[in-house]
Amino acid sequence: MGSDYPPSLRCGLPGLILFLETAFILIFWFCFSNEHGRTSKDLEIYPAFQDVNVLVIFGFGFLLAFLKRYGFSSTGFNLLIAALGVQWAVLVEGFLFSSSAGKMKISLHSVLKASISVTAVLISAGALLGKANPIQLIWMAMVEVAAFSTSRWINVKFLKIEEHTSLMHVHIFGTYFGLAVSWWLYHSSLSERVEKEKPNPISDLFSMLGTLFLWMFWPSFNSVLIVDVMEKRNAVCNTYYAVAVSAAAAFALSSLSSRNGKIRMIHIHHAALAGGVALGFSAPIIPHPWIAMILGLLASMVAVLGSHCLQTCLNSVFKIHDTCGVHYTFGLPGLLGAIVNVILFVIIKWASLSSLGYLALIEVGAFMLTTAIGLGTGFITGFILTFKLWKTLPASKYFDDQAYWEFPHLACGF
Amino acid sequence: MGSDYPPSLRCGLPGLILFLETAFILIFWFCFSNEHGRTSKDLEIYPAFQDVNVLVIFGFGFLLAFLKRYGFSSTGFNLLIAALGVQWAVLVEGFLFSSSAGKMKISLHSVLKASISVTAVLISAGALLGKANPIQLIWMAMVEVAAFSTSRWINVKFLKIEEHTSLMHVHIFGTYFGLAVSWWLYHSSLSERVEKEKPNPISDLFSMLGTLFLWMFWPSFNSVLIVDVMEKRNAVCNTYYAVAVSAAAAFALSSLSSRNGKIRMIHIHHAALAGGVALGFSAPIIPHPWIAMILGLLASMVAVLGSHCLQTCLNSVFKIHDTCGVHYTFGLPGLLGAIVNVILFVIIKWASLSSLGYLALIEVGAFMLTTAIGLGTGFITGFILTFKLWKTLPASKYFDDQAYWEFPHLACGF
Amino acid sequence: MGSDYPPSLRCGLPGLILFLETAFILIFWFCFSNEHGRTSKDLEIYPAFQDVNVLVIFGFGFLLAFLKRYGFSSTGFNLLIAALGVQWAVLVEGFLFSSSAGKMKISLHSVLKASISVTAVLISAGALLGKANPIQLIWMAMVEVAAFSTSRWINVKFLKIEEHTSLMHVHIFGTYFGLAVSWWLYHSSLSERVEKEKPNPISDLFSMLGTLFLWMFWPSFNSVLIVDVMEKRNAVCNTYYAVAVSAAAAFALSSLSSRNGKIRMIHIHHAALAGGVALGFSAPIIPHPWIAMILGLLASMVAVLGSHCLQTCLNSVFKIHDTCGVHYTFGLPGLLGAIVNVILFVIIKWASLSSLGYLALIEVGAFMLTTAIGLGTGFITGFILTFKLWKTLPASKYFDDQAYWEFPHLACGF
Repeated sequence: MGSDYPPSLRCGLPGLILFLETAFILIFWFCFSNEHGRTSKDLEIYPAFQDVNVLVIFGFGFLLAFLKRYGFSSTGFNLLIAALGVQWAVLVEGFLFSSSAGKMKISLHSVLKASISVTAVLISAGALLGKANPIQLIWMAMVEVAAFSTSRWINVKFLKIEEHTSLMHVHIFGTYFGLAVSWWLYHSSLSERVEKEKPNPISDLFSMLGTLFLWMFWPSFNSVLIVDVMEKRNAVCNTYYAVAVSAAAAFALSSLSSRNGKIRMIHIHHAALAGGVALGFSAPIIPHPWIAMILGLLASMVAVLGSHCLQTCLNSVFKIHDTCGVHYTFGLPGLLGAIVNVILFVIIKWASLSSLGYLALIEVGAFMLTTAIGLGTGFITGFILTFKLWKTLPASKYFDDQAYWEFPHLACGF
Repeated sequence: MGSDYPPSLRCGLPGLILFLETAFILIFWFCFSNEHGRTSKDLEIYPAFQDVNVLVIFGFGFLLAFLKRYGFSSTGFNLLIAALGVQWAVLVEGFLFSSSAGKMKISLHSVLKASISVTAVLISAGALLGKANPIQLIWMAMVEVAAFSTSRWINVKFLKIEEHTSLMHVHIFGTYFGLAVSWWLYHSSLSERVEKEKPNPISDLFSMLGTLFLWMFWPSFNSVLIVDVMEKRNAVCNTYYAVAVSAAAAFALSSLSSRNGKIRMIHIHHAALAGGVALGFSAPIIPHPWIAMILGLLASMVAVLGSHCLQTCLNSVFKIHDTCGVHYTFGLPGLLGAIVNVILFVIIKWASLSSLGYLALIEVGAFMLTTAIGLGTGFITGFILTFKLWKTLPASKYFDDQAYWEFPHLACGF
Repeated sequence: MGSDYPPSLRCGLPGLILFLETAFILIFWFCFSNEHGRTSKDLEIYPAFQDVNVLVIFGFGFLLAFLKRYGFSSTGFNLLIAALGVQWAVLVEGFLFSSSAGKMKISLHSVLKASISVTAVLISAGALLGKANPIQLIWMAMVEVAAFSTSRWINVKFLKIEEHTSLMHVHIFGTYFGLAVSWWLYHSSLSERVEKEKPNPISDLFSMLGTLFLWMFWPSFNSVLIVDVMEKRNAVCNTYYAVAVSAAAAFALSSLSSRNGKIRMIHIHHAALAGGVALGFSAPIIPHPWIAMILGLLASMVAVLGSHCLQTCLNSVFKIHDTCGVHYTFGLPGLLGAIVNVILFVIIKWASLSSLGYLALIEVGAFMLTTAIGLGTGFITGFILTFKLWKTLPASKYFDDQAYWEFPHLACGF
């Protein structure tokens, strides 16, 4: 196992978390109070909020639990950065989007939007899975939430993008931020898949558990922020059709792309969700189920092909190591969805709008801006994360729970 | 392990899935459009729809994950046939039950009914678990959904059975269809329980996970289609009491029926759910909790006794191998529920109805017709599934994920 | 393994369960009927009821599944005593709280309150995990539900405590009842942690699964009984903030308290939930998020410190063995919450109330009374549970599924 022990987290981690929590409590104290107006609306969205909460805490946690020696960290650190990230996102969004004077008002709706924003961090954490320690992850979460909210603020304020659309940029932002950070954390030993980076049947089954929860609650994720009832219903149904098609297509494409016609679990995990990601933008405006189904099929193809062709290429050419394959689970299907959204927008509004070209350009500009901000801030964050200060892990300790967790059961094997 | 390699799925599976998806998309394109009228109603049933969705995708997937080497296939193929089956069920139901001219209208309600119909396929797949390859399962799903919808259409159109009751025939139909198919797939090596057919403690715990989700959301399953608020509430409460009693009784009966008073996990999985199945028909009309509780107790008894006595008998005499024991989890409790439903119907309507005997006969006729159609179509489907065309698995490869899934972690054992 | 075989459950368990079920059915028959009035209200609380149901059946079941050889019993017996306990709690609450003449009316609301009451039993069962057989657990569940309902009845009738507050005493009651029983079941061999009492990575991951479900649905648990919409919304949000802070703090404190800065999974399981427990009483009346956050931080500290200091002390000095650490997961945070609740009550009502001191004293008296009744009845119950009659397990068979479950897969190891 090598003689380089992983650096102890003792000095850094508790201090960082307790400092952040104290700061959050103080900011909440002086700047925030509960909103009194929208209680009944808040209670109305509560069931959908819980679906999103399950998706964020449980779905992502167990989706990432596929590494055979990294189950504790996958689920545990997911909870940690989600819990810290949501508090921070509520604060940042409050400062950026609040218009009234006096104390800022927060409600369950604020927490819901914060939960969706935090998805960006969880996606980036998927790209870094096993390579970053919790101190780095927390620091990344703080920067990323702030960067994503700022990017969202620019989109909403200056480009007049709708709030729902701006939040659905979360997949693209999270992916490219994560990949840029991952470029800095690259190590030559990652060019070949080490033993510890592989799943075993049990960890794959735990990951299936998380995948299924993401799959089931994706319609809630895509529809929860929509106010208009007709659009909300369409968002639910269209997302359901899309994920159904992409789950079925995942099996076909996985079998087609493997040497002997066998199915790879990792393809199922990624491609089954791609349909939901691709529908993020356009779910409420797609008028017919078959369009959602075609989009689901395309997203599934993009995910499986990406997993097959791009993984090797990215890794060897660009030196970017993407542990969980977020690039083709969230990034490429997200881009596909953004492009289709613009095309749909043009088709639907063809007759009724004079300034169509301008508006379509704005939409294209919005997601390209998001991608650019994601890549840029991710690049800077990644550079900072390479400092000695963060007690970076030696590459020999990558993908191993034992670097962070006490094992009273070491002798019993896994 | 034998030298007979399992046939590659490469030629069949991708082609079949992609052909079906293309066909579905085309049919949706030309014949279906979103219903515009019932959006608010659709959003009202959304939380209950999600409960049913969790039950179908997650509950059944992990309930079937009890075989120690078949966890990937249990959860994966469950997702595959559910995703394909729901799309197909929406289409078939649209064609059979739609009355208006022009494009058929679909809503979340259609998807909900399709999800419940697909339960029949998942139950049949439980009987075939480990013996049928995904190509056979998909083909079976297509035939079974069409057959169940037709049987339901006959019940609703000609016998004037209520829609809720006709959908609750799903347990009986699924079981007898599955058993009939299983008769054709019988192989002499199945007469003794092979090593791979056994669970191990971890796979049993995963199965417990699925069981608990089925158990918890069964009240939603039995009540989601009921419109009258009083009946809906009664359906929820009665189902809860019934599953509570059958879970408790499962422990008693399992301990009673084993050699040394020990409890068998398989009994708990089956008998805990039997109460919910038995309540399917009569949950909304049972006037007092104690009737539901007695029914739960009886269903639990039927399930444990069936598991003890019938399994051996069915297997050796009728040459029907029922991997997951669906006969006594869904079939017998379903029949019990149907009979009790008729008796309750007679008692409740005793005074008020003149043509009581006739109506009771219709109810009896309905579930006997469903059973007959299930057995008949299952028999034909099973016969077709024995053709070489389907690349049937050699019996030595039964119950093994390795026939279908790529294992990058082969060396690490399970 | 020793030669002392565990006593067979065959004579006791089936008889006890079937006797109880028969008694329950008869009492339901003669004394209870469905309430007809509040159907629409019942259907309104149904989604929140399901959250509580998931928390009770699934969350607690898998939270307790952390012992490596006790997964079947943890999840199975949790289902058994919850199913029996809910029926019994509906009966007891009906008799104690019903005022009208004639048959008592039950609704989904009754089942919901019964589910919350049963949490006391599940907490006590956590303290006894692996040491009590199912016969003892069922007997304990019956006594404890009756004792808790009586204590609640005294609080509500004589001390005029609100119903929501009285039900939130469930954590304190369950803990001290369980510890008192545990004192009687102490065995000298428990002074050192035996091999079987330890978790392994897989069982810890299953336990994480349960923890996450408890964590996610705790806002529902703390808000479901509140009628006022403003208070209900506040209860949801405050609980969310509190569990978020306590989850983050759990990582900090666990790392701080361990030798080499590593995180212990057991701390995460306990401390992440402590915030929700501490908020039980005061969630609806806390006016600002930061107060909830501070309370979450304190609860997390209490849980981790308790786990570190008290466990050894309790075990060696008081001879109380608390397998699952319920004392610092539910007991101490519950007491902390009760004290903070009184302080908040005094601060909020400072100006408006003349008899403030009297009312505050009543609140203090209420939770001290609950603690006292819990300890007292637990002590008596524990004494009775030591009788030979209950076929108590020899200490060598503690923490082992094989004492109760048939293993068809014995040879394959865990």
